[in-house]
Amino acid sequence: MEFKLKIWLEKDNQPVFGRGLLCLLTLIRQHGSIKRAAEDLGMSYRQAWGNVKKAENRLGVKLLIKHVGGESGGGAQLTDEANRLVRKYENFMHDAEDAVKSVYARHFKE
Amino acid sequence: MEFKLKIWLEKDNQPVFGRGLLCLLTLIRQHGSIKRAAEDLGMSYRQAWGNVKKAENRLGVKLLIKHVGGESGGGAQLTDEANRLVRKYENFMHDAEDAVKSVYARHFKE
Repeated sequence: MEFKLKIWLEKDNQPVFGRGLLCLLTLIRQHGSIKRAAEDLGMSYRQAWGNVKKAENRLGVKLLIKHVGGESGGGAQLTDEANRLVRKYENFMHDAEDAVKSVYARHFKE
Repeated sequence: MEFKLKIWLEKDNQPVFGRGLLCLLTLIRQHGSIKRAAEDLGMSYRQAWGNVKKAENRLGVKLLIKHVGGESGGGAQLTDEANRLVRKYENFMHDAEDAVKSVYARHFKE
């Protein structure tokens, strides 16, 4: 037997940050492109950008800087605030999983 | 901002114990009846009993003792194993939430 864990952040009872947004933002950072990040996740550009905008509105911070046009059809990069949030969330998730692992071992392993 | 947490137990990649089963089992214990527990949760007797049987099969332990017939139309009580599992899961959940709360405070409260 093993435990499964799902953790996300909410603000005013609305989800604002979870694994989905983490994936999307780290892929946008990797590709420098919302379109390519969306393709990796099997979603449309519209959905991906919609998810980012929803999070921006709920968090009240700007997460992406979009570059319009250019040879590659424009790109996107994470704001400092987004990079900071991604790092904080990754560290939080990592430590939370470790903490629950210890608790689980204490209760379920004889 | 606050964190939300969902934890459940799996065996062979199948969910075997979570908040749903916990509610159902504690209500059956309280009422001494699967039917009344199911009513409280807005599900049918068939669904409730199906959920318990699925968990029994996956865990490989008997969770309920059913008493057939009698004035009240039969009743049900938790086995010692079920009581033990309920207590373990409640303690695990409680301690896991506390642990994640500490981790969250460390990462997100300045």
